[in-house]
Amino acid sequence: MKCRKCGKKAVANLRAYRLSLCSDCFVEFYRKLVRRSIEKYGIFKNNDRILAAISGGKDSAAMASVLKELGYDFEMLYIDLGIGNYSADSREKVEKLSEMLGVRLNIVSLSDYGIDITKLRGRICSACGTAKRYIMNRFARENNFTVVATGHTAEDLVSFYLKNISGGQKDYAEKLLPRIEPFDEKLVARAKPLFEVSEKENMLYAIIRKLPIKMEECPYAPRQEWKEIVYEIELKKPGFAKNFVRGLVSGQRNLNFRHCSICGEVSLGEICSFCRLRKRFSEMKL
Amino acid sequence: MKCRKCGKKAVANLRAYRLSLCSDCFVEFYRKLVRRSIEKYGIFKNNDRILAAISGGKDSAAMASVLKELGYDFEMLYIDLGIGNYSADSREKVEKLSEMLGVRLNIVSLSDYGIDITKLRGRICSACGTAKRYIMNRFARENNFTVVATGHTAEDLVSFYLKNISGGQKDYAEKLLPRIEPFDEKLVARAKPLFEVSEKENMLYAIIRKLPIKMEECPYAPRQEWKEIVYEIELKKPGFAKNFVRGLVSGQRNLNFRHCSICGEVSLGEICSFCRLRKRFSEMKL
Repeated sequence: MKCRKCGKKAVANLRAYRLSLCSDCFVEFYRKLVRRSIEKYGIFKNNDRILAAISGGKDSAAMASVLKELGYDFEMLYIDLGIGNYSADSREKVEKLSEMLGVRLNIVSLSDYGIDITKLRGRICSACGTAKRYIMNRFARENNFTVVATGHTAEDLVSFYLKNISGGQKDYAEKLLPRIEPFDEKLVARAKPLFEVSEKENMLYAIIRKLPIKMEECPYAPRQEWKEIVYEIELKKPGFAKNFVRGLVSGQRNLNFRHCSICGEVSLGEICSFCRLRKRFSEMKL
Repeated sequence: MKCRKCGKKAVANLRAYRLSLCSDCFVEFYRKLVRRSIEKYGIFKNNDRILAAISGGKDSAAMASVLKELGYDFEMLYIDLGIGNYSADSREKVEKLSEMLGVRLNIVSLSDYGIDITKLRGRICSACGTAKRYIMNRFARENNFTVVATGHTAEDLVSFYLKNISGGQKDYAEKLLPRIEPFDEKLVARAKPLFEVSEKENMLYAIIRKLPIKMEECPYAPRQEWKEIVYEIELKKPGFAKNFVRGLVSGQRNLNFRHCSICGEVSLGEICSFCRLRKRFSEMKL
């Protein structure tokens, strides 16, 4: 398998793009993909002070690294959840990442707030989500950041959407936007620069760039059934996740209807599609 | 397996509702389900003159039969596509259905318009869709019907939605609504009384009611990949299709945000979820 761009040995076979790339061309491709998202969807504004929320995993590490490559000035925030070895390992990885990228790392611990999440019975993930969202926003505002960037991927957003819509919670749909402006002075904007990037692409980029990342899942992570459903659709329809989020995010087209000049029925063009179909047959007979 | 309602032998195991029912109780359940949809979503209006589009298949036959049971006055329209034995068999079934229900059947043939769809090379399904939509609307308007009812199911709508959104065509999303009002005087309203009913439920109802239906697929029908994806999700998440369309159709909730009385951050209740979490820990220590 050869790189479509330079002919060297390919390391990446991107089914969503029907494209094979070598490591150098892949990194170039990945960087352009993220830059294009940021520009097209106005994910960062000119005077933004960006706080990148990082967890120690591949997605947020890839986000921090590519933002650095794209010339963004930002700081990172790691929230220490106090989950034994898992959190200790994660912290070690983000400290290495901070050193490698030369980007300042801020750390807030849940224990600073008197919370030991491992003591909770049930619903740990829900409490953890609450705590992370709270701390990200409050830390950002109190330290004069204007936007919090998270490493959410296309798969994260699609699985979240399918789960929530089928759970009847349509109001969560707006959380999918690549940039969310605050509706209250206490809130800081949210940005998802990787919203149309897939996990596989982040993983490839992280490996090529040799980013320090932890591979273990959180010991409390439940089975991500909706994520698995998205992976399965992706196998059948390569690019599904990114195409779906793009479709959700894109505005509706403005369609101009008029009346068909032949039959007078409603039509998008001068002649409606039914009359065009009839014409094909009348011409066939000639 | 016993009927949950009356204790007789169950014939239906509705995983979406975790409910087993005998044939009588299932028909009762099915009828209520459709009646509730019609009422909740205003699918038919008081003075509607309803034209039910029927194909010979289970879904539209079930629709016609249940509308009759629910006391609606309507006529049926069958469009003869002129596809050899397939269309001849379908026509026979709808004629039997008309007789069985005592509902007037109207028939329009594509050949009346000089179209022989089997002569087309490629894109037959797209041309067939165009022709059916055109004829349904025009026949309804010219014969003073106010609404065309189709037998679209929850699975139809979800697969249509997933396919179109991931194809970037967001403007199709509004086609999912259970009732679509005309935006032009040449158009007739569209209604989907079975929009939150599953194909399996229609099939069960059709079998119990011994409706004349054809089981063969159209010889030109392509593999319905998106439908298969929906079936697979349904296996893992029973009720997915109907929950998803309900979620899409339901309006957004109005959320009232305020500031937490403890920490001052944005909150949905008097005390924000993070402070409630902290409280649980401070109380634990007592």
